[in-house]
Formats: sequence, structure tokens, C-alpha cells
Amino acid sequence: VILRDPVHGLIAFEEPLDQIVVRLLATPEVQRLRRIRALGPASLAYPGAEHTRFAHAVGSAHVMKRYLRRVSALASELPPGDRVDPDSARAALAAALLHDLGHGPYSHTFEVLLPGAPKHERWTSALLLDPSTKVHAVLAEVDPQLPRAVERLVHGEHPIQHLSRAVSGTFDVDRCDYLMRDSVMTGVRYGLLDLEWLLRSLRLYVPQGKRTARLGVDGEKGLTAVEGFFTGRLYMYRQVYLHKAVRAAEVGLRLLFRRLRELDPLPETPPTLERALRGEPLTVGEYLALDDHVLHAGLAGWASSAADPIVRELAESFRERRLYKTIALRAEASSEDAAARLREVARRHGHDPVYGGVIDRVEVAGYAEDDELVVLHDGRAQELLAASPLLHGLARERFVLHRAIVPPGLRVAAAAALDDLT
Amino acid sequence: VILRDPVHGLIAFEEPLDQIVVRLLATPEVQRLRRIRALGPASLAYPGAEHTRFAHAVGSAHVMKRYLRRVSALASELPPGDRVDPDSARAALAAALLHDLGHGPYSHTFEVLLPGAPKHERWTSALLLDPSTKVHAVLAEVDPQLPRAVERLVHGEHPIQHLSRAVSGTFDVDRCDYLMRDSVMTGVRYGLLDLEWLLRSLRLYVPQGKRTARLGVDGEKGLTAVEGFFTGRLYMYRQVYLHKAVRAAEVGLRLLFRRLRELDPLPETPPTLERALRGEPLTVGEYLALDDHVLHAGLAGWASSAADPIVRELAESFRERRLYKTIALRAEASSEDAAARLREVARRHGHDPVYGGVIDRVEVAGYAEDDELVVLHDGRAQELLAASPLLHGLARERFVLHRAIVPPGLRVAAAAALDDLT
Amino acid sequence: VILRDPVHGLIAFEEPLDQIVVRLLATPEVQRLRRIRALGPASLAYPGAEHTRFAHAVGSAHVMKRYLRRVSALASELPPGDRVDPDSARAALAAALLHDLGHGPYSHTFEVLLPGAPKHERWTSALLLDPSTKVHAVLAEVDPQLPRAVERLVHGEHPIQHLSRAVSGTFDVDRCDYLMRDSVMTGVRYGLLDLEWLLRSLRLYVPQGKRTARLGVDGEKGLTAVEGFFTGRLYMYRQVYLHKAVRAAEVGLRLLFRRLRELDPLPETPPTLERALRGEPLTVGEYLALDDHVLHAGLAGWASSAADPIVRELAESFRERRLYKTIALRAEASSEDAAARLREVARRHGHDPVYGGVIDRVEVAGYAEDDELVVLHDGRAQELLAASPLLHGLARERFVLHRAIVPPGLRVAAAAALDDLT
Amino acid sequence: VILRDPVHGLIAFEEPLDQIVVRLLATPEVQRLRRIRALGPASLAYPGAEHTRFAHAVGSAHVMKRYLRRVSALASELPPGDRVDPDSARAALAAALLHDLGHGPYSHTFEVLLPGAPKHERWTSALLLDPSTKVHAVLAEVDPQLPRAVERLVHGEHPIQHLSRAVSGTFDVDRCDYLMRDSVMTGVRYGLLDLEWLLRSLRLYVPQGKRTARLGVDGEKGLTAVEGFFTGRLYMYRQVYLHKAVRAAEVGLRLLFRRLRELDPLPETPPTLERALRGEPLTVGEYLALDDHVLHAGLAGWASSAADPIVRELAESFRERRLYKTIALRAEASSEDAAARLREVARRHGHDPVYGGVIDRVEVAGYAEDDELVVLHDGRAQELLAASPLLHGLARERFVLHRAIVPPGLRVAAAAALDDLT
Repeated sequence: VILRDPVHGLIAFEEPLDQIVVRLLATPEVQRLRRIRALGPASLAYPGAEHTRFAHAVGSAHVMKRYLRRVSALASELPPGDRVDPDSARAALAAALLHDLGHGPYSHTFEVLLPGAPKHERWTSALLLDPSTKVHAVLAEVDPQLPRAVERLVHGEHPIQHLSRAVSGTFDVDRCDYLMRDSVMTGVRYGLLDLEWLLRSLRLYVPQGKRTARLGVDGEKGLTAVEGFFTGRLYMYRQVYLHKAVRAAEVGLRLLFRRLRELDPLPETPPTLERALRGEPLTVGEYLALDDHVLHAGLAGWASSAADPIVRELAESFRERRLYKTIALRAEASSEDAAARLREVARRHGHDPVYGGVIDRVEVAGYAEDDELVVLHDGRAQELLAASPLLHGLARERFVLHRAIVPPGLRVAAAAALDDLT
Repeated sequence: VILRDPVHGLIAFEEPLDQIVVRLLATPEVQRLRRIRALGPASLAYPGAEHTRFAHAVGSAHVMKRYLRRVSALASELPPGDRVDPDSARAALAAALLHDLGHGPYSHTFEVLLPGAPKHERWTSALLLDPSTKVHAVLAEVDPQLPRAVERLVHGEHPIQHLSRAVSGTFDVDRCDYLMRDSVMTGVRYGLLDLEWLLRSLRLYVPQGKRTARLGVDGEKGLTAVEGFFTGRLYMYRQVYLHKAVRAAEVGLRLLFRRLRELDPLPETPPTLERALRGEPLTVGEYLALDDHVLHAGLAGWASSAADPIVRELAESFRERRLYKTIALRAEASSEDAAARLREVARRHGHDPVYGGVIDRVEVAGYAEDDELVVLHDGRAQELLAASPLLHGLARERFVLHRAIVPPGLRVAAAAALDDLT
Repeated sequence: VILRDPVHGLIAFEEPLDQIVVRLLATPEVQRLRRIRALGPASLAYPGAEHTRFAHAVGSAHVMKRYLRRVSALASELPPGDRVDPDSARAALAAALLHDLGHGPYSHTFEVLLPGAPKHERWTSALLLDPSTKVHAVLAEVDPQLPRAVERLVHGEHPIQHLSRAVSGTFDVDRCDYLMRDSVMTGVRYGLLDLEWLLRSLRLYVPQGKRTARLGVDGEKGLTAVEGFFTGRLYMYRQVYLHKAVRAAEVGLRLLFRRLRELDPLPETPPTLERALRGEPLTVGEYLALDDHVLHAGLAGWASSAADPIVRELAESFRERRLYKTIALRAEASSEDAAARLREVARRHGHDPVYGGVIDRVEVAGYAEDDELVVLHDGRAQELLAASPLLHGLARERFVLHRAIVPPGLRVAAAAALDDLT
Repeated sequence: VILRDPVHGLIAFEEPLDQIVVRLLATPEVQRLRRIRALGPASLAYPGAEHTRFAHAVGSAHVMKRYLRRVSALASELPPGDRVDPDSARAALAAALLHDLGHGPYSHTFEVLLPGAPKHERWTSALLLDPSTKVHAVLAEVDPQLPRAVERLVHGEHPIQHLSRAVSGTFDVDRCDYLMRDSVMTGVRYGLLDLEWLLRSLRLYVPQGKRTARLGVDGEKGLTAVEGFFTGRLYMYRQVYLHKAVRAAEVGLRLLFRRLRELDPLPETPPTLERALRGEPLTVGEYLALDDHVLHAGLAGWASSAADPIVRELAESFRERRLYKTIALRAEASSEDAAARLREVARRHGHDPVYGGVIDRVEVAGYAEDDELVVLHDGRAQELLAASPLLHGLARERFVLHRAIVPPGLRVAAAAALDDLT
């Protein structure tokens, strides 16, 4: 299999070990990821961001392939237990491809809509371990232990420590692909990594008296690339993942789902979605039937529902991109106070206070310390924070996004009521 | 409105004339284009190609803006009747944004699935002229004649000839955007244009004794860019639009719809889609309800339909990307002969010959002459074919894609039966 | 004039105001900048970095053009005194093009080689004000006051404050061009700016009670771009400007020139260079005769000089890229101590201690506060450091590069002697 | 050795076989290529195009490395005699790096200036075979036969046919690098190749009854990339290599050298250059002393020469970029006739007819047939022209550039005299 990709260019799975990827690509569970947008409603803010979990899965497997190639070039520096044998390589490729298998409609957004429901990681495990899935069958055919090994690896557990971190660490193939992919597709290019240089500057370092290698980076060549990774991540949070229109769209959907839960079931709600809404447990097969199209079938129905004007308005406004408006609040303002004022504004204007706006507060750490990653200068190891003044400075900072998100009709009144908090 | 775009970078509609674009963007009819993939099933071959008609519409309006800016810089060279006044500029921006308004699910693919139904151009006209649409209302509010003017312009009719051709010519803003967009999103970069250079090298040329300007291109600076446009188009046809997996996926959908038409209505078919299938006339409102999600709701239903195994298999195989296989045939082989042999193969293997494979033959002209475009050297005009040996050579060539497209199970037998035609 | 540029793509100087650029481009003083590498010896570390001051000058004028266009779009928000009239615009374009006119061979390197000599800024002033230069003549022909006005502007003085800062501030057209250009040409892409977004997010802000505008940036849209500018600058310092091979090459040249000053004049030294070496004052015409080729004529001669083996070895090793080696020292180690040890090593190995290695210590502030730049949120201004946790963190950090740079033959001995300082 | 490159990104020579490249890079002969611009005077038209033969040599070795990796992946499809053993791989890497070793100042331009002198290919051979060069020493140390083997390979002779063609064929690593490099550095992006796809689509094909493989390309995947290579080459010829300002600059230098040959030796002429001018044979050491800086030392001297006003004017106008002007002539006009008229114009204006302008006529074939390259479809081979309508069309076309190139002062008169030929 050779593919073209807007992010990585040419992606090839042609070598013997890649066969596991080729076979997994042909399963319905992996193909279903084509029907799930990676960034949920972000295309309402960035029209290009329609990319799917499928493209991301393929990209992650590609980055893993490059990681394995790099590690294999370093093999002579490694203790035997840290070298990647073919079985582990196969598991790693599979884990990279399958790590997001359990996502529901609109990816992370779906979890926000169903607060009590199992997270996508739980579903990924279920899909890998359930003997009824094709993905399970493909893995088990190679080796009956492989489904379990891949499931553990997806959750960051593997005898080879650096490999588990490459699947699930601060600095893993998942993030490498999504930062780059989200950058290209949104047109916000701040998350573009210098991937080739990053990989080339990887080292594996065995601390004195230890028998396992830690992931290291060449100080001369790689530090800037690593810093770029962390600042790129931060930039993408602020510009994309926490963009005001994206948050507003999610608030709209959240309120819609809240309303649907309050009401008796509507005939327009697709049956499986109804069960998910009610918190009823779903079978693997039922869960697999959920995708963006099912969510949109619901939205189309609700938008012309005769049963409830709030449902109708929330669904229609999502479809027509009439989003809630945001008012930026100071970081240190009281969210409770702001929320109380919003409810008051809603009441005064005859709105149900529940749907009259929410306060949205997110804090992102400038740099969440990764004790694993070290920087190597001529064979001496240094902690990343000691080696990088930039990350050292960043580590002491927090980025706060604090906003009121209100219906368009209440914007002026809400802005007035919140004026001293902005 | 300022947008980020993976193709054009920053797109801004902030000037007074741009207000028409801003207001049209807020209509449900334009927002609906977010639910329609520009390249139909092409993402089955190129996983990145999930971009929508909405992104293309915005991009086309952006290119039109740049075209208008260029023409305005050339105003002093132009006869008064060829200068673009604000009213015409506004109509041109609207036409660029709205030119694809009438597309159905999966864009061009939908027309292939419903052979007798009105084409998307007809629907675009209907949506512009129907007083019930918001798009109509926005245009009519500016000027009661504007809906009709935009509708005519979309079809290439406007008193300013070069403007009508910029909306609908061989070398129009639509093509400029889609060649670039499809290139970026597929990762096949052959269609990337040197847009800035192309625009900068545009001239408008008034032939002796004429009173209207023709579109010209500066011979020294622009000829290569124009040639690149035409070869890029050709490359994209071969690599993307006529890619074997894309054609195979379309064949699968075509056969599915054919089967659905033969059967009694299935309960899984969304009602409006059913009516479209049966060739019943749709209202504007009904047509607008059709989008990719409705098609996928149908596919999900059909894939588990108990009523008909052929429907079930065709729908499921589309969802799981089990595509028909292609066998390349010689250009000069007889399609009829090949089709007859395919039917025979199908019969021999107990297949319904209708679903046992099709012959697909497409011819693309290397360069379809555009008598309008001239090349200018120091004020002298030359026909494009005379100025460009490359296009001169290309104009005499035809590209033929001739293929048998068969179910995976019949591939070996079909290949054997067609061996002397390949 | 239309130009292609590897950094900015198409650069056009075609509008009436651009005529000043077109005419200045035709002067011998501006054409001389083609013979001066922008990054001196950096191509010894980055083979692509052969770009000239000429390309940078053209790029800076292009960025200024875009800045002026942006400011003109903001004119209605500005107090009359801050609007840019055609005369100021012309001066700004000229200043952007000419700001580096006084550079000598290898740009900044030349100043390092001749410690007491006038800096390039002084020569720029001299060339602008001297009536014998063509640059002066072109400017004076437009307006007899223009040479002086441009000279002042190059040094950051102009009645319109934001304009002087656009020529010479922390965030000026010079830096915008060189960060991007050096990034592209070295292949180290960390300095690539999001220039279009940066310009689009510029605002001009008049503080209450003030009559002049300060440069501001839109908080929602522009903060990330500004942060990217400052981190990009930092990355480029570390990766390029202070790269160990670049520093080592400069040390080699510095020692060579030191030696030449100690000796009687050599016949191989080009006469004007000899006079510069001896600290004799040069006329404008003599200074203009100095360029990279003169330096290289010297190097070719010295490399085969019979007079002095140290000169010969230093010149030849520069031409053949046999550079001094670097040993990284801890930031807090004593440079004096290290230098003393180096001298001791040199003596022990029979080397003249002066040429036996140097200690190189550079400190770069993470972010040097710019009190001018403000961040605007819905019309309220915030200091940049308050708005950006990233820059706030960075402002408290210093980046120190501390190195011993020694002849290849002394590397092992020097490393041993300095071991506890590394 | 790891390098950054504006064209290929990261270039690494770290594997055992790469040691030959690492050692050759350290020789003075290879380092000298840093002092030779790849495109001669092209930076007068494209200010970015200052790149050197050194960067191109490194890039060619990098492309060769990728070619060898691709061929090694295909090894199982190859007859033993076509597999590349380590010795041949080493020779191929060396040949790619050294293929342009013999270029003089301004590369191809130098040959034009000294019509009777040995071509650069002859000098490359001489430098490789002469025992006094370091390059020879490095090669001979590996294997006494290696200098000769590399020299033969540079000229396209090697027992492995596909390898000799990869060094010197229509479709070789040299061209791959220079088309891409010249594209990036000029900013004219038409020559950018899809290198990764091109390499990936390479096949090696053994015709029936033959024992050696021919270079083939996968018809489905690679044909477009190959066509892009040939059209890209054509575009680059027209836009860059034969750009009117580049040709005019070369004419200026040609006339300058002609004049110098007519006169007695001038004191300003560097001695080795003087000998080259007079056609005296140079030793290897003398030839190596020639580089761009020597040419510029000459130009600086001649530009202030008291001896001859024609020399002075030609040298000064080159340094100040006052180029001859071009007048486009029809392809079929008689060059002799045009030249006669130019001489007449010059005489009439009191100019020496020799320096009063020249007629420049260049013909480029649209596609020069390469009988070696075949296109493979499912194992069947087809000639490239049969497989590609585009190249088939192109092969019948010729591109003619026909121009008068005259001193600025004669432009109007010349244009009048040539009017019916334009």
C-alpha cells in the first residue's frame, strides 16, 4: 500500500512487517474511522479542518514506522532489552494505527456530550479484545496474544519502555501526527514539526546503573526541535483546540444533548444514539454503528422537530452555524459570580437560564514536565528543564482561557453585566 | 471575516464590497455546502481529500477578489465598458461564491447516480431565483435584479465579457481554486498553480477594431504559468479525477442505485432520497435537505438491509472500502466486445451480468482550444497555440482511459477473458 | 520591476511610489550589495546560506511596502499625524532598501575583524549623505531634504513614531525579512514567520490622552504570531547565528586579521584592505571598493604567502574549511580561568598562546522587553508581557553560549584541561 | 556529517559507505566549489540564485544515496550483474559528488568566455586522475583503481548500465538536483520535482532475451512524475537558463573577454586568468586557483582600467548591472540578415560593430528521446513516447529563442531596424 498524504507526502507500507498495517486497514472498524472527523466541529472555525481519524491513524502508523527505523539505526547503542524485535515492532505499528479506534462521532466532542459514558480509550480496548471484531481477528491470526499486547501498548504498557512512550507519552507518534495534521488542515501552521530533524536527533540513553534506556535528544541538534514541539502544541491549543468558535459550537451541542436527555425520546433521534443518550450500555456492534453521519441524521431531524423549540433551535443553529457568542473574562475573575450574573441576565430576558449561557474556563500548563526526556551533550545527560531556558520559563506559566459563552440575543446584555470581569 | 485556509493561507473579506460575501456566508444554503464533499468518493483513494464544496466556494470567492484587484490595476488600459464597476464586482463575488450552490450529495457523483435528474447547474439557478431561499433574499435586498444577474453570471453571461469568462471559462476562478485545493488535499501536488504570477501576468487586450477586451497573458512572464495550468489540469485528471479506485467506487454506487430503482422502495431509504431515486420532482426545500449525511444514512441502512443481498453487499462494500477491481484495456480495443465478454464471465460464475462488471472508457483532450485567450508580446497578440509549442503539441493528443471494472471475485476470470484487449 | 524571490515569492515595484525603489536599485552602491554575503561565513555551516545583502535589501523594501499597505488600510483609525503621506512613504521605502548600505565584506563579520573601525551604520549614513554617491543623487533629485530624512529614518528617527519603529525597532521590516530569509536559505526553518497574519493583525493604538499611536497587535488573532516572531528569533540565534562552526570560522578570521596587523604589510594584501587593517580612514569611494571578493583575493594571496606561516595556515584553513574545534563550557564557569588554562595548553604544545584558542561567551536575553508593543482586546490595551505567559516566562531567562574554540591539534589537550568546566 | 539544505531538508552521510563522501568533502578541490556559483550570472535576473556548485554537488550525492536505496529495495527483481555491490555504490556516491569538480568561474559561463579552452568535463577528469590532488589521494587510498573508475563513471561508463545512466543520463541525479535547486533558489518553482514519488516509482526491467536491466517507471504511479520532470526542465530553460537578462549578461562578459584578447595584457588582469585568456595551457594547480573571486578581482580592476574605454565600460556595466537590452525576433527570421542590420546600426552611431550587439539564437527540443526509459504496466514494457501522449506531442515541437542583444544606447535604433523581423 502506497498512499499520498497532505501532511507526510508519500506513505508506504510495503515491507514485510508492514503487512499487519495493510491487513488492519482492510477491516470495517478501521474503515469506520473515515466517518469520524478528527477535530469535531473545528471546521466551523477552520473550513479546511474536515480531516478524519482515519487519516490520523494512517499518519500515526507512518510516524511509528519512522520511529522504528530510527531506533533500529541506534540499535548498537542499546541494551539488548531495549532493541525492538519484529514482534514488538509489529505490535507498535498496530498500536499506532489503532490507538484511536474507539472514538465516537466528532471524536472528543462525543465524550463531552455524554458525560457519564465510557471514554474512547475504553472502547478502543473493547474493540481490540472483543473476538467479534475483524481487528481482533486480524491480530489474533498473527498471534493469539497480539490483541492483548496491542491493547496494553495503546495504554502505554510494554516491556520496552521507550516503545510504550512512543505510543503514549508526552512526545509520541500520536501527537507528532496530530500537531502536524491539524496545522496543515486548519491553515494555522504553528504546529508544524521539524519531524525529520526531531527523529534524527533522538538518542536512547541508559542512565548509569540502570538497564533500560530513556528517550534522549541530542543537545546540539535536537533541543530546538523539541522546544518547537512544545511551543507548537501550546500555539495549537490557543489557536485551534480552544478557539472561541470551536468552544461555542461544542457548548451548543452540549446544551442540545442536555435538553434531549431532559425530554422524552424524540422520534427524530436515531435509536442507537437515543440509547447512548440515556446512558444505556451499548454493545460493540451498536457502538460501531455510531459515526458523524448518525449524529448529523439526528441534527437534521431535530432541526425540524415539532416537539421542542429549544431542541429545534439548537440543532438548526448548529447546522446553519449560528453560534453562541463569547465574551472574554479575566483569568482571575470568579467563574461562579459570572455564572450567577449570566443566569440573572437570562431570566431577565425570559430565557431558560440553563440555555442562557455558560462560563467556560480552561487552564493549560505551559509545559507539563516530562521526567523521562533527557538532553544529551557529548554523552552527558541533562534534564530537559535544565537544558532549555525556554521550557524552564514556560514551565512556570499557565495559560487561562476564561469566557462567557452566550446566545447571540443575550450578548449585549451579558457583556454589560460582566463588564467589570473582562 | 478572516479565515485560514490550507490552500490560500489567509482569506479576508473585510472591505465594503466584500459585505455581500459575508452576508451570503451566513445563509443556510451556503452553510449546507459544508455537508457536501467536493470530490465525492475520492477520499477512498486519497485519504486527505475530505474537503467540502464550502471550502471551495470560499476559495473561489477569494480568487475572484484577487482577479478583480488585478483588473482594477489594469483599468487605465481598458475601454470603459470593460472596467468593473462596484455593482458588477459585487455580482462577480457572489457568483464565485455561489457557483456550486446546487450540488447534491458527493457533488458530481450524485448526478451520475440519478442519470435523468436535473444537473447541479439547474439547481443552482433554482436556488438563486427561488424567493424562498435566504440566498435569494440576501441578493434581492441589495438589488432586486441581483439574483437574476448572479444566476446569469454563474452561467457565463454578463455584459463584461472577461468577467463572465472569469466565472465560467476555460480559465476561471472555479478551476483555479479546485486545481489547487484538490492538489493540496490529495497530496498530489501536480495541480498547484503559480496563482500570484498568473494573476500578475494577466493583461486585457482590445483587438483592433473591437470594443471589448479579451483576456491576455504577458508572453514573457505568463506563458509558462498558463502552460502549467493546462498541464496541471491534465495531470489531475489522470491522477485524481479518473483514478481507478475513484472510478471503481463510483461504479459501485451507480450499480447500487440502479438496483434500488429496480426494487420496491426499501424502508431503509431516506424518504427524500427515495423520491429522487424514482425521478419524482423535488421542491427546493427537499433538494436542500439532501447532503452527504443523507446518502450515508441510506448506506448504513442498506448495508444491513434484509430485503436484498445485492443492495446489502454493494452498500456494505462501499462502507468498508471493498472496491471493484480494474483491468486496463487498450485504447483502441472495442468496448462492446469487452462488455460482452464480461457478461459472459459473470454468467459463467453465476453472477447477475448487470452487476458483474462494467466497461469504463473516458477520453480527455490534451488541450481544448480556448480561442479567447491570447498571448501578448510588447503589445502584439498571438493565439495561445501559436505562442506555445507545448500546448500546440498537446492539442493534437488525446488521453484515453479504458478499463474493465469488475467485482473482486471475478477479477481473475475477467482478466483472462480480456487478455488480448489489455 | 517584478522579481522572483525564494522567500517572498513575487516582489513587485510597479506603483508610482515604488519608483524610488526602482531608481535606487540601479545605483552602483545598491548593486554592490550583491557582492556582500548577508551571513558572512555561515555557509560553512549551512551550504545554502550564500544569500546577499542585496536580496535582503529588496526583501526589506517589499515588507515595508506591505506594512505601508496595512497602515493605509487602518488610516481611518489613526490621528492625522500618524497617517503616512506619500513623502513619508517614499522615505520609508528608501530607508528599508538602504538600511544596510554601509556593510562591508561578510557583513557583521567585517566589523569584528576591524575592532576600532567605524560600524556599518556610520558608513550607511556617510553613503547617504555624501554628494558623490549615486544613491544620494537619486534621493536628492526627488527632494533635496530626502537624503537626510532617509538617513535619520534608518537610525529610527522620524516624526511618525510607528514608521521609525518599522524601520528600526524590535519588530521591524529588517528583522522580518532576515529571519525569514535566513530560515529559508539555511534550511533551518525555525525563523519562518507567519508574515501575512502578522501584518493583518497589526493595529495602531492611541493611548488615552496621547496624540501618537503605538504599534499594537490584535490579541485574539495576532498574539501567537508575535510570540512566534520572538521564539523564532531565539531559535535562529542558537541554531544559526551562534552556530559553533560559524563562531569558529569567525575566530579563525579574527586571529588572521590580528596577525596581519602585527606584521609588516604583506604584498598579498589588497591595498585598500591594508589601509582598513591599519585603521587608516577610508574615503567613501575606497570603502565602496571593499566587498567579499576583495576579502577573498586577500585570502587567496595569504594562503600562499611565503612571509608568515601563521598567516598562511589561517588563510588556507579558512579556504579549505579546516575550522577550529569547539568545547562547550558550563554557563557559570569562569571565562578567565578557562582562557588561562588554554594559554597553558598552547604553551605546553609549542603554540603561540595568542593563536592557541579563545574563549567565546555570548549571552542572549530570552526576550528583551519592547515597551512599545501592546496587545489589544476589544479596544483595551495590555502590555505584551502581561498578555503573553510565554514571553513572560521567556523574559526571565538568559541563553548563554560558552565555548572554548581551539585549533584542531589542541582539541584533546584542551578538552582534558577544561574537563571540570564543561 | 548531517547538513541542512534549502532543497532537500536534512542530508545525512552517516552510514559506513558514506565515509567516502565525508572524506571527499574535506578536500580543497571540493571546498573550492563553494567559490563557484552554479548559475553564473543568473542572480542578476533572480537575486536569490547565488547557490554554489558545492551545494549542488552535495545535493547530487544525496539524490544518489536515495537512488541506491531504491535500487537496493528492488534487488530481488534484478539479475545479479545489475545489483549494486558496495564498491560500485561507493564509486557512484563519489561520482555524484565529484561530477562537476572541473567547473571554472561562473560554471558554464567560463567555457563560453574561453571558446577554445578545455571543457569542464576535461578538467574533472584531470583533477580525478592527477596524483597531486587530494581528491585523487582520498579515492586511491580506498582502492588504487577507484580514481579511474570514478572518472569513467562521471562520463557515463560503468559495467552496471543503469548506474552509469543515473550519473549521466537524461534522467540522472545531477539533473534531479539542479532542477530542484535552481527552482528553489530562483523562486521559479516550475522545476520542482516530486522526487520521492519519482524514486518510489522506479523499476528496473530486463527485456526478454537480455541480461541487463533498463530503467523503467511504473505506468500507473510514475508516468506523471516523469512527464513533470521533462516539462519542468523545459520551463526552467525558458524561464531561467535562457532568461533574457541572463543571456544579456553573458553577452556582456563574452564581449569583454573578446576585447581583452584583442589587447595587450592589462596589469589589472589576474595572471592566471591572463594565461587562460591567451589560451595557454594551465596546470591543475593553476586551474584550481581560478574561481568566482578571481573573475571578480579582474572585473574590479578592469572597471577602473585606464587602458581601454571599452574594457572599462563592459566591466563596470557588469558590476553595476547595466545590461544589454534584448529585442525578440521571430523564430524564422534570418539571423545573418539581423546581424548585418545590427552592424549597420552600430556603424551609423559611431560604435565599433563588434560591440554593437549580437544575435542570439537557441533552439531547445521539446523532448529529446531517451530510448532507455520504459514504462511498465503490470510487467509489460512500453516505450515512453507510446505511453505518454504529452511527451509524444512535445517530441514534435521545438522551442526557439531568437533575439538581438544590443547596448542600451542602440536599443531604439536597433528595434527600428529590426522591426519587420520581430
